[in-house]
Amino acid sequence: MQNFSLNPIGIIKTPYLDNAPYQPVDTDEQEFYLQLKPDYVAGLKDLDSFTYIYALYFIDRLNAAPKMEVAPPWAAGQQVGLFASRSPLRPNPIGLSVVRVKEIKGNRVYTSGLDVFDNTPLLDIKPYINDLDSKCDANNGWVQNVDDDEHLALHIQGIPHDY
Amino acid sequence: MQNFSLNPIGIIKTPYLDNAPYQPVDTDEQEFYLQLKPDYVAGLKDLDSFTYIYALYFIDRLNAAPKMEVAPPWAAGQQVGLFASRSPLRPNPIGLSVVRVKEIKGNRVYTSGLDVFDNTPLLDIKPYINDLDSKCDANNGWVQNVDDDEHLALHIQGIPHDY
Repeated sequence: MQNFSLNPIGIIKTPYLDNAPYQPVDTDEQEFYLQLKPDYVAGLKDLDSFTYIYALYFIDRLNAAPKMEVAPPWAAGQQVGLFASRSPLRPNPIGLSVVRVKEIKGNRVYTSGLDVFDNTPLLDIKPYINDLDSKCDANNGWVQNVDDDEHLALHIQGIPHDY
Repeated sequence: MQNFSLNPIGIIKTPYLDNAPYQPVDTDEQEFYLQLKPDYVAGLKDLDSFTYIYALYFIDRLNAAPKMEVAPPWAAGQQVGLFASRSPLRPNPIGLSVVRVKEIKGNRVYTSGLDVFDNTPLLDIKPYINDLDSKCDANNGWVQNVDDDEHLALHIQGIPHDY
């Protein structure tokens, strides 16, 4: 099968220079933004009419081969299939995050928290459309069977906690 | 900025040989499935514990350059920014669909409807995790201002209608 190449449309700016949380913590600061190359700025028109957007990015700071079974760090040793996980070590390391749009100024889209390293290559932005993307009957899959699932939920949602 | 290359993990099988609907129609038939290459089948473990998954794919049957403003076919001539649309003509033509998991058998993940051509290259599968991805307060952005938004909602949700 054919290979395909991708060309970033910009970068993602975050405070995470050397390590990123499993899931981001949102703040009132404008610390997280998508910064587009000039050629693509016109494509942002009307994006601020959406509450949420998808950011797609290339997870470029990996140095290991993907394994088909993984043990997520917060899952108490449980082994699950790679495609049943959000592990960044994937055959095609495309990251996907749903973020809130705070403000768009020039070539910057300020968002809620993103769990990626600073300067991560941005591949695409898509509107998160309620009628298409919001599945209120979705479950949490195997995650909901983890023993300490309330603790886990704090990690997943990026809620600070000290236990 | 660097370029990146991608290598499909499989293909998407659909009934759409020559044209695809804007949004798919779900049926009881097992007409839609993700077919993985043998090396990746072990990565499907536990995927069937999720109600919904994301399919990421390469939109490979395009023959035009992306424009930064687009007029979606069902939007009564309204021009919006490319990144505020789900147009397939994007700088990085990565398609993203939320689909229901019906059944997993061997290297096949049977799903609800997918609006892509048969044999579309599959790049990734991720679990759609309620706590992370379901935003019940999301809006429909500029889409909700389209005049005939009830008609439009039928298109977006892929509900068959004859008017």
